[in-house]
Amino acid sequence: MSGKRYKSKHKVLYYECEKTYRMTLSMLLNVLIQVSGEQSSALGLGDEKMGELGYAWIVLQHAFDIHRMPVTNELIEIETQARQYNSFFCYRDFYVYSETGTLLVEFTMVFAIMDRNERKMIRIPEEIVSPYGAPFKKGLIRIPRPSKVDEKIADSSFYTIRYFDIDVNDHVNNAKYIEWMLDALGEEFLKNKRLKTGTIKFEKELLYGQTAESKSSRLHTKEKTVTAHEIRTEAGFHCSASFEWK
Amino acid sequence: MSGKRYKSKHKVLYYECEKTYRMTLSMLLNVLIQVSGEQSSALGLGDEKMGELGYAWIVLQHAFDIHRMPVTNELIEIETQARQYNSFFCYRDFYVYSETGTLLVEFTMVFAIMDRNERKMIRIPEEIVSPYGAPFKKGLIRIPRPSKVDEKIADSSFYTIRYFDIDVNDHVNNAKYIEWMLDALGEEFLKNKRLKTGTIKFEKELLYGQTAESKSSRLHTKEKTVTAHEIRTEAGFHCSASFEWK
Repeated sequence: MSGKRYKSKHKVLYYECEKTYRMTLSMLLNVLIQVSGEQSSALGLGDEKMGELGYAWIVLQHAFDIHRMPVTNELIEIETQARQYNSFFCYRDFYVYSETGTLLVEFTMVFAIMDRNERKMIRIPEEIVSPYGAPFKKGLIRIPRPSKVDEKIADSSFYTIRYFDIDVNDHVNNAKYIEWMLDALGEEFLKNKRLKTGTIKFEKELLYGQTAESKSSRLHTKEKTVTAHEIRTEAGFHCSASFEWK
Repeated sequence: MSGKRYKSKHKVLYYECEKTYRMTLSMLLNVLIQVSGEQSSALGLGDEKMGELGYAWIVLQHAFDIHRMPVTNELIEIETQARQYNSFFCYRDFYVYSETGTLLVEFTMVFAIMDRNERKMIRIPEEIVSPYGAPFKKGLIRIPRPSKVDEKIADSSFYTIRYFDIDVNDHVNNAKYIEWMLDALGEEFLKNKRLKTGTIKFEKELLYGQTAESKSSRLHTKEKTVTAHEIRTEAGFHCSASFEWK
């Protein structure tokens, strides 16, 4: 038994795509978060209500499979459903379908709730999750851990956090980390490879004015290419990820 | 007499807004360009058709008045209309309305047509503009020139062009220049001021891997604040703008 399903349609716009006409991962992520926000609003638990209660949703982990990335002007349907939760974590699934019902992308996200004043994770309040109808299950769901960056062959690029990287939670929006991790791979790599699967783990927020190091290493085998990524600052470790490409 | 009108609705999404919940200027611009692209498609002259013909629309100038910026979750309506054209320039107006019909934002843009192989502006082909129904008028429409940056008090920030800054025309999307011009003003300024009017002039394209200098100066008077902006590289001058704030 899982939670209530919610569906929403979206037309992929030209500015959500890279120059190859494929939707960018960061824009797809924005759209998924938008749809889960719509479900929350429909259940009376939109951002405004959460703000009044002094809470904010934060994303801790993503794992995804891309069968085919949506393209410019494509009409897609996004389905989302809370799967289960425990004392600190909420698990939510997303499915992106083409107009003819083909499954294009699958995403699983792990959310937590932050106290906006303390800026700390809190125990999940029962009244915040019960409207979604997903069961409480004590255990954790294993999300694959990102592969480690191979320090011997790692490259680094640097990104200073800009005003428009910051969201209403006053920290860097999680879609931006993805842009910095991917951009560090360079144009030659990005325009020739296609993203297949990935796993991303957020550790610590990034704030306006900080400079982030985006470190990456690549592992090529006959079957696949795997890239491993880290986002670091002087304050430590903010995010890790690994992606598999074809 | 002006060209055919085209209208489209848009819901302002959370990732189109800055942390103050107001839509960003660069996202508003993306949405406007999207709507003019929809009109072109409806007239059989979408990007695909233009691509086949070896053409691409490029934006040369913007002038805008913001009465109130749309906010997160607001339902807006965008109306656009080609006003007139001459041998090299096409003038197009945009009006953004609230759900109750209040005029929120007005934009005028100057477009030209680029030959995709030569990467040069060409004389406007009659068959490309006639479907829009706007008249040929020999004269130019005066778009206010941007104020000059005051070199004595100018500040600079630097932006290296990233993979995701590049659009299908293989150069930096014009909305990105705006992010760099505004970001250079800093958080303290941006969160306390509201953009009222502006004028932007594009001179030369920016390509992947270049580093752009975003230079700006501020003029405060009793009534208003005016900021002047330039985007430069070693290759020269790419864009200038000035904005009026309240």
